[in-house]
Amino acid sequence: MSAAPHAVLPRIIVIGCGFGGLEAVRALARAPVDVTLLDRTNHHLFQPLLYQVATAGLAAPAISAPIRHVLRREMRGGRLTILQAEVVDIDVLARAVVLDDGARLPFDHLIVAAGAVNHWFGHDDWAAHAPGLKTLTDAFAIRARVVQAFERAERANDEVTRQAWMNFVVIGGGPTGVELAGTLIEIAHHTLPDEFRHIDSRRAHVVLLEGAEQVLSAFAPTLQTSARRQLEKLGVDVRTGQRVTAISADGVTMQSAGGEVTLLARTVLWAAGVAASPLAKTLAEATGLATDRAGRLPVLPDLSLAGHPHINVIGDMASATSAGKPVPGVSPAAKQMGRCVAANIVARIEGRATKAFHYADYGNLATIGRSSAIVQLEVPGLGLLRLSGLAAWVFWLFAHLYFLIGFRNRFFVMIEWAWSYLSFARSARVVAQPQKAASQRD
Amino acid sequence: MSAAPHAVLPRIIVIGCGFGGLEAVRALARAPVDVTLLDRTNHHLFQPLLYQVATAGLAAPAISAPIRHVLRREMRGGRLTILQAEVVDIDVLARAVVLDDGARLPFDHLIVAAGAVNHWFGHDDWAAHAPGLKTLTDAFAIRARVVQAFERAERANDEVTRQAWMNFVVIGGGPTGVELAGTLIEIAHHTLPDEFRHIDSRRAHVVLLEGAEQVLSAFAPTLQTSARRQLEKLGVDVRTGQRVTAISADGVTMQSAGGEVTLLARTVLWAAGVAASPLAKTLAEATGLATDRAGRLPVLPDLSLAGHPHINVIGDMASATSAGKPVPGVSPAAKQMGRCVAANIVARIEGRATKAFHYADYGNLATIGRSSAIVQLEVPGLGLLRLSGLAAWVFWLFAHLYFLIGFRNRFFVMIEWAWSYLSFARSARVVAQPQKAASQRD
Repeated sequence: MSAAPHAVLPRIIVIGCGFGGLEAVRALARAPVDVTLLDRTNHHLFQPLLYQVATAGLAAPAISAPIRHVLRREMRGGRLTILQAEVVDIDVLARAVVLDDGARLPFDHLIVAAGAVNHWFGHDDWAAHAPGLKTLTDAFAIRARVVQAFERAERANDEVTRQAWMNFVVIGGGPTGVELAGTLIEIAHHTLPDEFRHIDSRRAHVVLLEGAEQVLSAFAPTLQTSARRQLEKLGVDVRTGQRVTAISADGVTMQSAGGEVTLLARTVLWAAGVAASPLAKTLAEATGLATDRAGRLPVLPDLSLAGHPHINVIGDMASATSAGKPVPGVSPAAKQMGRCVAANIVARIEGRATKAFHYADYGNLATIGRSSAIVQLEVPGLGLLRLSGLAAWVFWLFAHLYFLIGFRNRFFVMIEWAWSYLSFARSARVVAQPQKAASQRD
Repeated sequence: MSAAPHAVLPRIIVIGCGFGGLEAVRALARAPVDVTLLDRTNHHLFQPLLYQVATAGLAAPAISAPIRHVLRREMRGGRLTILQAEVVDIDVLARAVVLDDGARLPFDHLIVAAGAVNHWFGHDDWAAHAPGLKTLTDAFAIRARVVQAFERAERANDEVTRQAWMNFVVIGGGPTGVELAGTLIEIAHHTLPDEFRHIDSRRAHVVLLEGAEQVLSAFAPTLQTSARRQLEKLGVDVRTGQRVTAISADGVTMQSAGGEVTLLARTVLWAAGVAASPLAKTLAEATGLATDRAGRLPVLPDLSLAGHPHINVIGDMASATSAGKPVPGVSPAAKQMGRCVAANIVARIEGRATKAFHYADYGNLATIGRSSAIVQLEVPGLGLLRLSGLAAWVFWLFAHLYFLIGFRNRFFVMIEWAWSYLSFARSARVVAQPQKAASQRD
């Protein structure tokens, strides 16, 4: 197909350069369309390894890359524009996106892939005491809290305060919560011992709280049990069936069948939930659609919005189903959706019918700590393959290295990991901005 | 010498874990003394490479390491305490240091090595428009400004605004200013081309302003001329004999023999001056001594304060002379002072006389950009050795790698450099926290 003159190319806007948006832009790069990619930040983030930045195992550049660098080959075609900008509104009727500086960008087709944000289920006051982990800024904030907690414990004047600084509570037993809890205990037991004079970092207490009866709800029951056993072997205090009722600067109160308990802890991390980007609500109000409990927009089988075939929603913002089952909020699903909507937009432009999204589920994996993980894989023709322990961890390691964006990062992450595996050191244990004296309560 | 029982060991407090403080602690580690090291941050910073973090060439952990990790061997003796704390006062008479939380730590001997801070020579309002480079936080702020400037240029609606975002002014022609200007032009000419659609990053204009008639005043005139020629060959607009009279969000106004000129530039970086930590003023008021123009305290030949033999001041806070010449504010001098005061304190404890500080000047080196540097070395018996260009750059590279703290950092910095030298990529071009829309003026 020969490209039409530039001025008349269909204009496509992609909001968000996460896994879904990036894949859509790549898939559209060779089509005769004019693409504008908008993102609030200048980088694509490999979110599955964000917990490593939060726990000082990796520097931020190891898991993030400038969007312009990632898409430098696609830029060469001359039909891709990348703007670092925040979208404040979407004018559904006029088909235009409104940016933070008031600029209006018209579109013929829109792909909304702005992802998810931290969500405290109506308890926004918990945010200050229990930070979540979605962005690099979140990761730096958590890193500062964890590193400073041990510093405060070293300076504490009494035993009660000292232990409160050495108690860590992670709320949420999904992959992020399990990874954070497993890494915190590794830091306390292996990285920090012998570096302090007044405290023994091995006396740190890491509690993982989960509302359901098992951690890692997306996995088969045998793997859930294995994950819990692996966590407990590392030293994590796993408590399931717990409903958090209050979070303050002093700790967490939770309710279970056994009654109400308060854990004193100066460091509480939130891994219990995310919700779709607020842009979903903006779109819902403009289209009359209703968002679900997680703030996501219902999409048609081809991932467009009912009554608005020019607007497509993918990734963590979309409540989609495939083969009658809800599509999970994981990166392979977002990437597959990105490719699907790119193909559907080209089909619409060419007057062909769109295709329904089909989620190819290749499995699921979660890491727990040093040499611990669980993996369940769909092997075509063979059924479900389950791994746990060291074999699962090695699989997880290579899978993550393989999917990291760009050669450089992959190579650097590999040697950083090799080094920290051998030395137990955590190379990024550096906090740029110390917390001010005003926040030092003891 | 056999150690006395723990309770009666002389108590030594070291304020600051820069090059001077770290060296002093290391030198005291085997002496029968009880040492407490205080620092506001949790890391030792290799400041000579801070400009690489500011210009996105290196991640912060590559040039900084947790103090506790750096001093883990010294901790094993059981006589070293490290506290992350800010010193707010020094009680000279009672011999105690007062911390931010009100705690008072008594000492028998004090080493004050709190270094230097950015200094705008009475124009504190310039700080907001022309950030300086002394800490990791400073480096992240400069990195964000530089990366965002090109993003803003790409979004600009008119040519004047676009070019204002692509004009960069570096104030101060010392080593830091030269490094920043050389690296900015390298980014514009080699890293960013082809990554934008509306701008040509090669049209960025980098101006280096210096008040004196030559850059790099610490070097021999022939090397100064060579440095200027190398900068201009890279594309830097070097303007000497310029006195800055105003800095605003829009640019810099300067006065020279040729009259007053205003450069329109949205990005202005300050490398024109530092002053001693404000603790010097605190000490001056308590001791009746007068600080010099750079806020430094005059010290006796043995680096103690006149009338206060138990208080020693080293590094960028000390106005010291050696062989009748002022000791420069460079890391080799700070390290040598650290070793000198450690030995002098042990001498005082043992009733021996202290020794005067003698600065061994091995030379000076400055890097300019890719394959460009100047080096002047004192070779005993041979006199002054001068290098410029590629040979000087290779020398600079290995000298800096050699002095980087800790094996890991050295190794990682080396491969990161090798990679970016070959690829022109700048791996750390990632800004965690995008600037808010409110600050986006166009």
